[in-house]
Amino acid sequence: MRAVRLHEYDKRPVVEDVPEPAIGGPLDVLVEIGGAGLCRTDLHIVEGQWAGKSGVTLPYTIGHENAGWVREVGSAVTGVRPGDAVILHPLVTCGLCRACRAGDDVHCSASKFPGIDTDGGMAELLLTTARSVVKLDPSLQPADVAALADAGLTAYHAVRKAVPLLYPGTQVVVIGAGGLGHIGVQCLAAMTPAEIIAVDRSPAALELVQGLGATHTVQADGRQVEAVADLTGGQGAHVVLDFVGEGGTEAEGVAMMRRAGSYFVIGYGGRVEIPTIDIISTEINVIGNLVGSYNDLDELMALAAQGKVSLHTRTYPLEAVNDAMDDLDGGRLQGRGILVPARG
Amino acid sequence: MRAVRLHEYDKRPVVEDVPEPAIGGPLDVLVEIGGAGLCRTDLHIVEGQWAGKSGVTLPYTIGHENAGWVREVGSAVTGVRPGDAVILHPLVTCGLCRACRAGDDVHCSASKFPGIDTDGGMAELLLTTARSVVKLDPSLQPADVAALADAGLTAYHAVRKAVPLLYPGTQVVVIGAGGLGHIGVQCLAAMTPAEIIAVDRSPAALELVQGLGATHTVQADGRQVEAVADLTGGQGAHVVLDFVGEGGTEAEGVAMMRRAGSYFVIGYGGRVEIPTIDIISTEINVIGNLVGSYNDLDELMALAAQGKVSLHTRTYPLEAVNDAMDDLDGGRLQGRGILVPARG
Amino acid sequence: MRAVRLHEYDKRPVVEDVPEPAIGGPLDVLVEIGGAGLCRTDLHIVEGQWAGKSGVTLPYTIGHENAGWVREVGSAVTGVRPGDAVILHPLVTCGLCRACRAGDDVHCSASKFPGIDTDGGMAELLLTTARSVVKLDPSLQPADVAALADAGLTAYHAVRKAVPLLYPGTQVVVIGAGGLGHIGVQCLAAMTPAEIIAVDRSPAALELVQGLGATHTVQADGRQVEAVADLTGGQGAHVVLDFVGEGGTEAEGVAMMRRAGSYFVIGYGGRVEIPTIDIISTEINVIGNLVGSYNDLDELMALAAQGKVSLHTRTYPLEAVNDAMDDLDGGRLQGRGILVPARG
Amino acid sequence: MRAVRLHEYDKRPVVEDVPEPAIGGPLDVLVEIGGAGLCRTDLHIVEGQWAGKSGVTLPYTIGHENAGWVREVGSAVTGVRPGDAVILHPLVTCGLCRACRAGDDVHCSASKFPGIDTDGGMAELLLTTARSVVKLDPSLQPADVAALADAGLTAYHAVRKAVPLLYPGTQVVVIGAGGLGHIGVQCLAAMTPAEIIAVDRSPAALELVQGLGATHTVQADGRQVEAVADLTGGQGAHVVLDFVGEGGTEAEGVAMMRRAGSYFVIGYGGRVEIPTIDIISTEINVIGNLVGSYNDLDELMALAAQGKVSLHTRTYPLEAVNDAMDDLDGGRLQGRGILVPARG
Repeated sequence: MRAVRLHEYDKRPVVEDVPEPAIGGPLDVLVEIGGAGLCRTDLHIVEGQWAGKSGVTLPYTIGHENAGWVREVGSAVTGVRPGDAVILHPLVTCGLCRACRAGDDVHCSASKFPGIDTDGGMAELLLTTARSVVKLDPSLQPADVAALADAGLTAYHAVRKAVPLLYPGTQVVVIGAGGLGHIGVQCLAAMTPAEIIAVDRSPAALELVQGLGATHTVQADGRQVEAVADLTGGQGAHVVLDFVGEGGTEAEGVAMMRRAGSYFVIGYGGRVEIPTIDIISTEINVIGNLVGSYNDLDELMALAAQGKVSLHTRTYPLEAVNDAMDDLDGGRLQGRGILVPARG
Repeated sequence: MRAVRLHEYDKRPVVEDVPEPAIGGPLDVLVEIGGAGLCRTDLHIVEGQWAGKSGVTLPYTIGHENAGWVREVGSAVTGVRPGDAVILHPLVTCGLCRACRAGDDVHCSASKFPGIDTDGGMAELLLTTARSVVKLDPSLQPADVAALADAGLTAYHAVRKAVPLLYPGTQVVVIGAGGLGHIGVQCLAAMTPAEIIAVDRSPAALELVQGLGATHTVQADGRQVEAVADLTGGQGAHVVLDFVGEGGTEAEGVAMMRRAGSYFVIGYGGRVEIPTIDIISTEINVIGNLVGSYNDLDELMALAAQGKVSLHTRTYPLEAVNDAMDDLDGGRLQGRGILVPARG
Repeated sequence: MRAVRLHEYDKRPVVEDVPEPAIGGPLDVLVEIGGAGLCRTDLHIVEGQWAGKSGVTLPYTIGHENAGWVREVGSAVTGVRPGDAVILHPLVTCGLCRACRAGDDVHCSASKFPGIDTDGGMAELLLTTARSVVKLDPSLQPADVAALADAGLTAYHAVRKAVPLLYPGTQVVVIGAGGLGHIGVQCLAAMTPAEIIAVDRSPAALELVQGLGATHTVQADGRQVEAVADLTGGQGAHVVLDFVGEGGTEAEGVAMMRRAGSYFVIGYGGRVEIPTIDIISTEINVIGNLVGSYNDLDELMALAAQGKVSLHTRTYPLEAVNDAMDDLDGGRLQGRGILVPARG
Repeated sequence: MRAVRLHEYDKRPVVEDVPEPAIGGPLDVLVEIGGAGLCRTDLHIVEGQWAGKSGVTLPYTIGHENAGWVREVGSAVTGVRPGDAVILHPLVTCGLCRACRAGDDVHCSASKFPGIDTDGGMAELLLTTARSVVKLDPSLQPADVAALADAGLTAYHAVRKAVPLLYPGTQVVVIGAGGLGHIGVQCLAAMTPAEIIAVDRSPAALELVQGLGATHTVQADGRQVEAVADLTGGQGAHVVLDFVGEGGTEAEGVAMMRRAGSYFVIGYGGRVEIPTIDIISTEINVIGNLVGSYNDLDELMALAAQGKVSLHTRTYPLEAVNDAMDDLDGGRLQGRGILVPARG
């Protein structure tokens, strides 16, 4: 089969023939890829930034946002059958540790991460297990939802955790209205009655989220903390979701909160730095957020099937992976790039 | 009546005669003080550190940890009667704002803080309202519990918030086994089945909490993070309660947590500084904690009446306030100093 | 002032002149009524069904769903000023008991219920307290929202409690799409992503809620349990909100639930009867629901101000109270009847 | 191997030689039984009461409360190794359905129940899977804890769900201080600061739980509802755990609750019958409870290892199963009967 293989760091990946993976264990599921999302992390992988963390042996196949159709299943698989359209949870988890058994499979003590530390989905076929496949509603196409598998799932997970804090009359700030943020806005609008204040540098990004459920938009021009104060009666917001997490949003996000507010860190790159007296005197919280669980992905697909969450995408043939990467790197890619293998 | 009055910052308070306060409104409650806790904050008030924050006009009466007996009540007070033994919530709250109505009276938008920004309880009488008095069980004496009104209530509140995280098999670290920490250990032992790991520099403090419910004690000798790692199978603890919050415990506390753990900031003075990538990749939380609510104080008194929480105290006559302050400042005060007015 | 007075049970109330109430205590608030909702409970009061429970002394003024404008406030009232438009929480609560302090003011140990056990709002003026007035958004008119004060608040409260159970992909049944039910459907649509299945005997009621957010409607023709099974893949719904609670819905509601589901009782008149083996083998819950808290009413007004919850009403002059009662009793009243005093 | 086989309903089971089970799949675990609890359900199985529900084909091996040592594991099992002491969750679950993935594995859509619908543990060996084995602390012996696998787990699960309702100052009633109830009392004492009121007909049972953490005991002599009212200041208890669920406790349990209280149904046989007006006017809840999850069992084992939960047992050789059943049936068995196979 054809696959996007990375042979050497800092060199372009190549599209080449590799042997097809095959069902080995009773819970294995072999998936024909219908779409593999391209993510900035893929650029970083090529640059070698993940070499130490992932410990992967080159060459290998990249691609960690995957959806497609089941081709074959192991003997113990009951939930899906050949032909079913599926989206793949980014992790392959053990199902046996306490975290897996508590629904926190993201904290599985023995997980694999296809596309990062083992062969991923920029290929015609991907081998995964029954623990990672979510069956799609007939109204959804793999190529349309693939990018929800990781980026969308991260946004959903953070919003899901914030829901209990967002009753009618509350306000939530979304910092960063881009890839993750515009999913976050849609999830907030679908799941809470809160007023949504979107903050971004880009007027185009703000215009997009205004149509997706944002109540107010604030351009990040240096006065965004004051603007949020104005929109919240000088109190600050109940919740701040920071999809950027660097370049100053860490301090701004904290400054946008009201007493007893919660600052959700989703984006990263910077540092949270707060005097302990400020943490205790206003009783604020800083909440970390990783990608969502399997059940989170299942719930996100329910929202997608109801038409409440959608994604702007641009498809490329699998063979054009380097064009897609160039477009992403060069800022020419509106929406999410999706690689689609030719179907024989 | 006699009262401890601060006339000038950086000068000793004086004990002098002042007019007795009187019931003014229908919800007012006049309390004969049975004990007023002496706290390090009182030293800081005298030094003038709170001048700007409190905005209080000198002279005024200090004392913010108070208990005693009701002498007289306003026309609309129903819950207590003259003669009832009571402990006083540190704040006088409005009862009308959203926070008060949600049980978060600590975030009342219009509260007063006797002993900080208005006349306090180092006196024969204190004027408060029905919203601040918790009736004591007959088994409890005001002088014995007064210090639970603020220090104890803060420790209780943090533990109460941590309870849902502390199921059987979990581990909680208590950093600082002193005034607040030793109450925290007792509350943890009374309300959770978690293993309690107490960390302190002082062997005497550790010995004390061992008898109060700590499962393990760790001397803070520079290797305390490793020691906690050893006691938690290399995973770290589910919850860290930091009653110090300065001098390096901010970073150590974070390092003592396991994945998805929560670091509760209670003590203060230092800074929390964490790269956002560390917050998201382990999905940790930083939880701020202020003093507890009225209902929290009511619950803490239930624990005290059951004999599950107690306090080491040393009483001084009200007239000896400066001796008590000298003992506290000079490190000669074991347990909590309690000022007791002469009862005519 | 003019007021609707009940002089004798089983006789028509009369509209007559009574002395104006006056501010007595510091937290009192005197409200010029802008609208008083007419409710089936008012008919029952006239019939004497509440005589024993309320213990009220005749004559007195009825009307327990009230909104208007503040005319005068007591000396300690800070949240509202003369001229402010307000809606009134149905209870006047003490603010001092544990329930009030925990945000469960509905379980206040010393509450009054104007219109039931003391003078109500079918009058030009009503005397209440600062604990019961919720300020209205400028976009809302008292006569338009008055009926949300009790009927709407009950529906909101039940939905609010169900929110944590209703994540994407879940299904909720609403039994009874009338006065309370059609508010319930709007609250569900505003606060949850759940599929809403409305069940009612009346095609007109079902048509109404279809436009308000119901995903599916089921006519209660004797096969409604099967219809819900069909709509839920044979599993049953995660939550059932029963706004009827009599005439067989008690058993049908339980039968419409899936394993580990929750049946919310809101309407009443019948009996819940379930073998304990059925309760434990499917691990179901039966959840009681009373009217909402003050904060619930505040949140419901936020939804109303956002245009997410609205009410069909028909106004009558205060003097026409008996016409309105006749219309309600005779089934000629579409939507909610609102009595509006003449404004001098 | 030797096994207790049921060949015909209403006839005594026989102990006979059967082929040893063998590892078939990669997640299989073969366990040498160290103790199999004898339960009243086993008597009912023999009587044929479960024939219709379980659909099991005779002959088969009974025994659904099992603990022992791992003899052999499948190729994919990582958590346990041969020689490890383990207790077995009563269900063998799929690990793939939403319930399993949410930590509610008890509601697994494809579970097996060894000893009920497939071969159980009254034998030398039991075949189960990695999803059902909880490793024991070195301080625990299989025969001592076996009966916690089902009876104890049910009691633990109900208490765990009640923990958030049981803050200091609350009161919980335990109806039935026998097999499940005396575990419930120990779990309550370990996990909550609530006052525990135990109600039972048997003075001996009450004496036992008094030593295990019950604050008060009430003999069920017909005046038990009044006795609970007296012990709760006429208010009723916050939570009632009914381990009987028949013979009148259903109504008594409801009558023992305060406003907004919760009645937990654990035992069964009778009927819950409550007018809907009583459910809504006091806003009470009826909470169903089934056996606990795998993580619940893991947590219960943590309590057992800490010495906070223990069980009275009497061991019998496996060959003496009918003596044990006679003793149980004849009321001669104090504590729990445990069948222990001879170890070669």
